[in-house]
Amino acid sequence: MTPFDYLKKTKKKRMDELFTLLRFASVSAKSEHKKDVKACAVWVLDHLKKIGFKTELHATKGHPVVYAEYMVDKKLPTVLYYGHYDVQPPEPYELWKTEPFQPVIRSGYICARGATDDKGQLFTHVKGLEAIIKSTGTLPINVKMIVEGEEEVHSTNLPVFLRKNKKKLKADIAVISDSGQFSKTLPAVTFGLRGIASVEVFVYGPNRDVHSGSFGGAIANPVNVLCDMISRLHDKSGKITIPGFYQRAKKVSAWEKKQFKKLPFTQKAYMKGLNVSALQGEKGYTTFERTWSRPTLDVNGFTGGYQGEGAKTIIPSYASCKITMRLVPDMEPGDICDKIEKYLQRIAPKSVKVKVDKHGGAKGVVVPTDGPWLDAAAQAIKTGFGKVPVFMKEGGSIPVVVDFKEMLGMDTLLLGLGQCDDNAHSPNERFRVVDFERGCKMAAALPAELAKVGD
Amino acid sequence: MTPFDYLKKTKKKRMDELFTLLRFASVSAKSEHKKDVKACAVWVLDHLKKIGFKTELHATKGHPVVYAEYMVDKKLPTVLYYGHYDVQPPEPYELWKTEPFQPVIRSGYICARGATDDKGQLFTHVKGLEAIIKSTGTLPINVKMIVEGEEEVHSTNLPVFLRKNKKKLKADIAVISDSGQFSKTLPAVTFGLRGIASVEVFVYGPNRDVHSGSFGGAIANPVNVLCDMISRLHDKSGKITIPGFYQRAKKVSAWEKKQFKKLPFTQKAYMKGLNVSALQGEKGYTTFERTWSRPTLDVNGFTGGYQGEGAKTIIPSYASCKITMRLVPDMEPGDICDKIEKYLQRIAPKSVKVKVDKHGGAKGVVVPTDGPWLDAAAQAIKTGFGKVPVFMKEGGSIPVVVDFKEMLGMDTLLLGLGQCDDNAHSPNERFRVVDFERGCKMAAALPAELAKVGD
Repeated sequence: MTPFDYLKKTKKKRMDELFTLLRFASVSAKSEHKKDVKACAVWVLDHLKKIGFKTELHATKGHPVVYAEYMVDKKLPTVLYYGHYDVQPPEPYELWKTEPFQPVIRSGYICARGATDDKGQLFTHVKGLEAIIKSTGTLPINVKMIVEGEEEVHSTNLPVFLRKNKKKLKADIAVISDSGQFSKTLPAVTFGLRGIASVEVFVYGPNRDVHSGSFGGAIANPVNVLCDMISRLHDKSGKITIPGFYQRAKKVSAWEKKQFKKLPFTQKAYMKGLNVSALQGEKGYTTFERTWSRPTLDVNGFTGGYQGEGAKTIIPSYASCKITMRLVPDMEPGDICDKIEKYLQRIAPKSVKVKVDKHGGAKGVVVPTDGPWLDAAAQAIKTGFGKVPVFMKEGGSIPVVVDFKEMLGMDTLLLGLGQCDDNAHSPNERFRVVDFERGCKMAAALPAELAKVGD
Repeated sequence: MTPFDYLKKTKKKRMDELFTLLRFASVSAKSEHKKDVKACAVWVLDHLKKIGFKTELHATKGHPVVYAEYMVDKKLPTVLYYGHYDVQPPEPYELWKTEPFQPVIRSGYICARGATDDKGQLFTHVKGLEAIIKSTGTLPINVKMIVEGEEEVHSTNLPVFLRKNKKKLKADIAVISDSGQFSKTLPAVTFGLRGIASVEVFVYGPNRDVHSGSFGGAIANPVNVLCDMISRLHDKSGKITIPGFYQRAKKVSAWEKKQFKKLPFTQKAYMKGLNVSALQGEKGYTTFERTWSRPTLDVNGFTGGYQGEGAKTIIPSYASCKITMRLVPDMEPGDICDKIEKYLQRIAPKSVKVKVDKHGGAKGVVVPTDGPWLDAAAQAIKTGFGKVPVFMKEGGSIPVVVDFKEMLGMDTLLLGLGQCDDNAHSPNERFRVVDFERGCKMAAALPAELAKVGD
C-alpha cells in the first residue's frame, strides 16, 4: 500500500478527525476560552502520539505549545513543521450561516472557524505524515513539529520557547501551510510575508459621559478627536503620514514587480468578490504591490459612546481603537509602535488625554526564491495539485517565519493551501474539501521529495 | 393647614412615592423595556387619579401619553404642565456606583436613572399640586397635564397627540421643569433651549470582514473612511463645515451676551468638574455662548469592527456612528439633516457606500424674558428657594416647547430644578434632596402666583 492508497482508504475517518479538531473553540484572544484552547492542545498531542510521534506539551506564559518528533536517522534531512491550533474570535456571530464550532460540509466546503486558518491546513501534514508511517512503517526524513496556540495573538510567547529549545528544534528547513494558493486553479509557493505592528489607542475626555446638550460645544468630544487623529494617519495619496514610517521599508524590487505582473488578475473580479465599486490604496502601486510589498495601516475596531438601539445624546467620556500596521522588510514592529505613539501624542489636542498601548508584532520576511528545497516543494505540490506552483507573496503575517530565520538560522517553505475567499478571520470561514484532499496528497509526497535534497 | 404644612407632614411618603416611580426601567430607546415604559405610564396615571385628577391614557405609535386635568372654573387661568416619565438608557452599567433602577439616598442625593431627568422634577409639580388640593380642597387655577414617554427619543409621536387634542390642551401658559438651576445657590428661569437634529451614518465596505493582512492596502477600510468623514465636519477653528449649516442660525444678541456675562463662571472650576485640562470649542465665543446660543455637532457613539478583548486583524465590513447636532433658532432639523446627508455623500470616496438615516429632531426656542407670567414664576421660585432667580439658557433640547408655541400658540415657563453635575444622561444620575424639597415648595406656591395673572 502506498501512502496515497492509505489516504484514499481513510478518507472518511480523516474528515471525522478534522471535524473533531474544528469543534474545539480554541480562541486564543479570549480568556473565557482558556480551557478550550488547552483541551485542543491536548487533543493534537494525543493524536500525534497515536500516529507514532514522541510528544511533549510545553507550558508557556500563555497557551501551551505542542511539540512532536519522529526521528529516523541522523543522516537524513530534518524538517521542522509548524502550525497553530488556535483560531480567531468568531464574532460577529449573527453573520455566520452555520455554527462556527460545529463543522459541516456545504457545497464542497468544510465550514467552521479554523477550517483554513490553520487547523485544516495543519491537518494535511499530520495526515500526510501518518499515511507514510502507516503504509511504509517509517518516514524518509526526520520530522520535528511545533503546533502553537497563540498565532492569532501575535505568537507572544513562542520566541521564549524557541530560544529555550534551540538545540531540540535544529532542522534543515521549515515547512508551514498557513497561507493561500494563488487561486482555485493555481497552487503557489509563497516567498514573502508582511509583518505586523499593533497598538490600541485610548482618548480620554470628561470624567464621565456628559449630556451633549449641556456640554456640546464647550469641551472636546473624544470620539470626534480620535476620528480626527485617525484621519491624520493617511494623506490624500494613501501614504501613511507617521514621521519615519517608511524609513526602513525596502522598495518593491523590479524582479518582484515582474513576478507579480505574470500572475493573472482582474480588477473587476476582485472588486466583485468583495462587492466594492472601487479599490483604494497607495498611489503608484498595483493591488499585489499594495497588499504584498507595501506597508499599510488599518483600524480593526473602534469603540466610543452609545452603540445600542435608538439615541443617547452624550459626549462620551472616552473612545478607543485597535490599529494594526502591516510591515515589510526591514521595518521593526517596536520602532513602528514607538513612532505611531509619538505622532499620536503630538497631534492630540490639549483638551484630551491620549494613551497608546503598544503590543509589538513581527517583522516581515522574504524567503529564497530558488534552491533545491524549493524545487522539492514544487514537485510535491505538482503531485498533490497536478500543477506547477507559481511564486507569490502574502499580505498577512506568520511571525514564526522571522523567528525561524533569526533564531534558528533556517529558511521556511510556505506552502499555502487556502483560497482568498476562504474567509479567514471572517464569519463563515471555510476550506475547500478538494484543497484539503490535494493538500493531504501533497503532504504525503513532500517528505520523499525533501529526502532527495539530502542525497 | 397650608400646602407647605402638608408637604412637611408627607415628607417621608413623598420620597417613598418618588422611589417607586424611579424603580420603573422606563427606557424609551430600547424595545426590551417596552413593558416597563407602559407600566410606568400606568403608575403615573393612577397616581394622578388618586390625587383627584381626571385622567386618560393615550396610546401613540410609540409609548403612551398620560393626560390629566383638574378643572376648577373657566374664569381662572389654565396652566398646562408637561413632564416625561421615560429615561435615558443606563449604559455603561459598570460605571454606576448604585443600581440605576434601585434608588437610594447618598450624601444628600437621590441616586437613580431619571432622578433629575425628569421623574424627580416632574414629581415636584405632582406633589405641589397634591399639597394644594389636599390642604385647600381645590386649586386656584385650572390644571392640564401631559406626561409623555418619548422625550428621550425626540418625542417622535407627541406632535400627533398635540395636533389631535389641540382643543383639549388649550391653556394660557405652559410649565416645564426639565432643566437646571444656574447653580447650587442660584435658581434660574430658562429663556432659551437649543434644538436638535439627529442622524445615524453607515459606511459599507467589503461584503464581509476581511483579513487585514490579505486585503490591507487594496481596499477602503470603512472605519478609517468614517473617521475621515467625521474629521471633515469641523474646521480648525471649531466651525462646522457642512455647507449652509449656519445659514438660518440667529446671531448671539448683544443683550444675551450681556446677560451671560453677569452670571458667575470660573473656567478652572468648570474644567475641574469634568477633569479636563483644556476646553475646546468654536473660536470667538465664551463657554455660555458655545453651549447655549451656538449650534454644535457631536458624535454620540461610534461602532466599527472588533471591540472585544485582544486583537482581531480585520478590515471591518462596515462602520456606523450616531451624530446629533444642537440647533439654535431659526435652524430647521429637517433642513440640517438634509444638509449633513448631502455633504457626507459628497465627501464619501467611491470605494464605500454611505447611508444616512435621518431622525429629524426639534427646533431651538427662545421664550419671552419679561411679562406677568415670568414675574409670577420668579415669585414662586423665590418662595421655594429663598432667592430671586437669574435668567439663563440651556444647551439641551425640550422639543415640546417649540410645539407648544407653534401648535398651541402658547409660551412656556422653564423652571429647571436640576444641577449641571446631576449627571443627567450619564452614569450615577442624581437629584439633590434639597432641590427636590425646594422644588415641591416652589410648585406648591406657583398656582397661587399664576392665579394672580388672571386677576
